[in-house]
Amino acid sequence: MNERQIINRLAEMLEYERLQHSIRVMESARSLARLHHTDEDKAAIAGLLHDCAKGFSGSELIERSKEYGIELDQISLCQRGLIHGPLGARVANDIFGIEDMDILSAIEYHTYGKKDMGFLEMIVYLADLIEPARTFEGVDELRDLASEDLQGAMLKALDNTIKRVIARGGLIHPNTLEARNSIIINKSNL
Amino acid sequence: MNERQIINRLAEMLEYERLQHSIRVMESARSLARLHHTDEDKAAIAGLLHDCAKGFSGSELIERSKEYGIELDQISLCQRGLIHGPLGARVANDIFGIEDMDILSAIEYHTYGKKDMGFLEMIVYLADLIEPARTFEGVDELRDLASEDLQGAMLKALDNTIKRVIARGGLIHPNTLEARNSIIINKSNL
Repeated sequence: MNERQIINRLAEMLEYERLQHSIRVMESARSLARLHHTDEDKAAIAGLLHDCAKGFSGSELIERSKEYGIELDQISLCQRGLIHGPLGARVANDIFGIEDMDILSAIEYHTYGKKDMGFLEMIVYLADLIEPARTFEGVDELRDLASEDLQGAMLKALDNTIKRVIARGGLIHPNTLEARNSIIINKSNL
Repeated sequence: MNERQIINRLAEMLEYERLQHSIRVMESARSLARLHHTDEDKAAIAGLLHDCAKGFSGSELIERSKEYGIELDQISLCQRGLIHGPLGARVANDIFGIEDMDILSAIEYHTYGKKDMGFLEMIVYLADLIEPARTFEGVDELRDLASEDLQGAMLKALDNTIKRVIARGGLIHPNTLEARNSIIINKSNL
């Protein structure tokens, strides 16, 4: 599928606002990829498809995961919103015919991150947060940082996520912790 | 060894201030155990011995761990201060003759916690934080909470630890995350 065909198919699966968000993430991911000398086309496709499983209800997320043989951890079972990452990677492969592992991995881990994230994974994670319609406190600083230092921006974004989840008494996915710890370890060559 | 003999032996291993802290933690742990109908003697001994490996230097912590066959994870290797928990459990057994698994486990996990902590483990973790000489912001609220609700106090203490480590850019031990997540899951029967 080309970009237009993907958007048309996504329009059948996502609400209008979610589709517009996905298109903005595609553009932000493309820009970040250009800045950081990463494959722009892969970044754009991954950005466009990152929320392709976001239209499913809580029970559908569970059912589809079973169908695809995804093993759901306890945190994802308790906070089903997290499932659309790994499920999205399967949907991107199955429905949209994406076979590139970098793209699929960027979709899979855009919700909670993972240890030792690669460039494309970081770009999609960050593009999701800094696309032009995002307005949370500190988003401009995060945009600036993402342009200059992907790992620094990821650390800031992951730390913000952890603090936000703590403030609302939610569960923190272990991958999110591993993602931030691995950045600190890599940065300091510990 | 009785309490007096343990204190005399600890005095040879720890600096004066650390020994005084250990004695205060013993008393706080005993009080918490009384309030929460847990074995007071076990709590007192675990509190007294919780920092028994705190006198070792960074390289000694590594060497002794090797001698005892402790497998150190990457986070503990990067932040060696964490090692005195698991090493302390071995020292308590080897030098102080403690064989009670509840006491040894409370010593082992008093630095970074663990999933599904038991009463004695929570009591020693909290006693270490709320002993009378502690003065950090919010310590009085934590003291009150620990008297009423051990799990609630643990959640608050673990969340504070995570936020503090984030603020200084340090590594968060995965056990600390598992400890807080398991409390939330247990509390809400998720």
